[in-house]
Amino acid sequence: MPAIPPVRRLALIGVGLIGGSFALDLKRLGLVRHVAGIDTDPANLQRALSDGLIDSAHTQIDAQSLSGADFVLIATPVAALPSVCRALAPQLAPETVVCDTGSTKQSALAAFAAHLPQHLPHCVAAHPVAGSERHGAAAARHGLFAGKKLIICPHQTQNPQAETRAAELWQAAGAKVCRMDAAAHDTVFAAVSHLPHLLAFAYVAQILARADAAACLENAASGFRDFTRLASSSPELWRDVCLDNRESLIALVRGQCEQLEAIEQMLHDNDPAALHRCFAQAKHARDQWLHGQEKAV
Amino acid sequence: MPAIPPVRRLALIGVGLIGGSFALDLKRLGLVRHVAGIDTDPANLQRALSDGLIDSAHTQIDAQSLSGADFVLIATPVAALPSVCRALAPQLAPETVVCDTGSTKQSALAAFAAHLPQHLPHCVAAHPVAGSERHGAAAARHGLFAGKKLIICPHQTQNPQAETRAAELWQAAGAKVCRMDAAAHDTVFAAVSHLPHLLAFAYVAQILARADAAACLENAASGFRDFTRLASSSPELWRDVCLDNRESLIALVRGQCEQLEAIEQMLHDNDPAALHRCFAQAKHARDQWLHGQEKAV
Repeated sequence: MPAIPPVRRLALIGVGLIGGSFALDLKRLGLVRHVAGIDTDPANLQRALSDGLIDSAHTQIDAQSLSGADFVLIATPVAALPSVCRALAPQLAPETVVCDTGSTKQSALAAFAAHLPQHLPHCVAAHPVAGSERHGAAAARHGLFAGKKLIICPHQTQNPQAETRAAELWQAAGAKVCRMDAAAHDTVFAAVSHLPHLLAFAYVAQILARADAAACLENAASGFRDFTRLASSSPELWRDVCLDNRESLIALVRGQCEQLEAIEQMLHDNDPAALHRCFAQAKHARDQWLHGQEKAV
Repeated sequence: MPAIPPVRRLALIGVGLIGGSFALDLKRLGLVRHVAGIDTDPANLQRALSDGLIDSAHTQIDAQSLSGADFVLIATPVAALPSVCRALAPQLAPETVVCDTGSTKQSALAAFAAHLPQHLPHCVAAHPVAGSERHGAAAARHGLFAGKKLIICPHQTQNPQAETRAAELWQAAGAKVCRMDAAAHDTVFAAVSHLPHLLAFAYVAQILARADAAACLENAASGFRDFTRLASSSPELWRDVCLDNRESLIALVRGQCEQLEAIEQMLHDNDPAALHRCFAQAKHARDQWLHGQEKAV
């Protein structure tokens, strides 16, 4: 792999799990000279400074925090993207690459087009498929992206150098870079990521509403723990993702209700064959998938 | 703790994850002299013999396999319990303790009462709250029950010595023994164990039915992995549990659909406050629960 020129100044907007981990990886690789951390939460910035994720701390997107930035990583919750783009517009040097990290990509492209129209060719819509239910600067760690996908959704006016620059930095952090159409991306991730988060929250909400909720939680064990891990995720982040991608999600939630009604009917009919078929097909597919994942690592 | 007399001969009916792990624990503790493994699957028996889970292998519940047994552990899928009890009836010595391990306890008590009426006082309905999506003799391991609950649902004619004997052996295997009414048990475990299994199967079934199922699975990551772990569980075992406890489950599946319809409405109304409230309450409760679990270990 040819040597990659380091980022002179990374403007990191949103110093959390994703942004902080990206900064850490670039630092460890000697691929960034200065990280300017920009965040609305001063305590989070302080933690990021003392953990060495960032070199300077800023609470505003302005001439000072963006001065000299040749790479901007936007790692805020997705709902903040339009206002972040508006604040960035007057501060960007012509060649500065702007890369987002949100879980929904059609709205990212729309925000770039609406609020950074002059700069659009240098805006890269990207989604690192990595994460955890933990968040904030304290959750950042080396190697979060190793072996994980980084999906770029290129647009028609994409500057190839900007796309390559974003791709090579993510690749250096260990990610497997691939490309995908933004609409297909949003549909697929609604199904495999956003819906499971919504379902985990919904399941816990159902348990909490029960009269015997305390007895339930007292007897919950490892199955409950794993099935509900996603319900420990950030409510703000997932509220935003779900609303952003709500057309896909409404269809999926309806589909899940239909699936549950079909299973309810099998229970009602006391139909072991139908129930077994449904469960066995799911188990087979999930086992195959896991086997493929383990081989890929 | 006073010394516990060892089991002279354990008749282990169903040599899988639960039964095999119990036998291993008793053997390690010197609390059993001979384990007679009884299973319908000869290959599974062979594996159990060579792994040292059992000392003799049998494919029938009969005079030979039950000869001299002073403790019978039934660790088959729950649907097999009535026929197991019928086969046991002519083979039990008067004081032999019979303990089941199923996830549903009202049906266990009903099977004991219907098919072992003479022996009912010595039948103990128990549920070790431990497990894994793996199954069969190959999945058995030392320490599976350490720190986990073992719930006994005593009945009106319960012989106290039989109950104490079962409790002390499970306790020796590391379980925390507690008692619970069978109806309350079944309602609570429908909510915190059976429903999450059903929902995990249902979610995978929904993804499989999509035209873009392959693209979905290709992009699925750690959130998908954890949320679907329960869908790798045994379809036979969970078909049986779900049908056995189907009245509770039908009500829960309906409740989940209502919860999902409420969330669908929030998405439809583009209501960030309502969605945030729902997600944040779930996260708070799940975090509190996890914190309590970690403190308890």
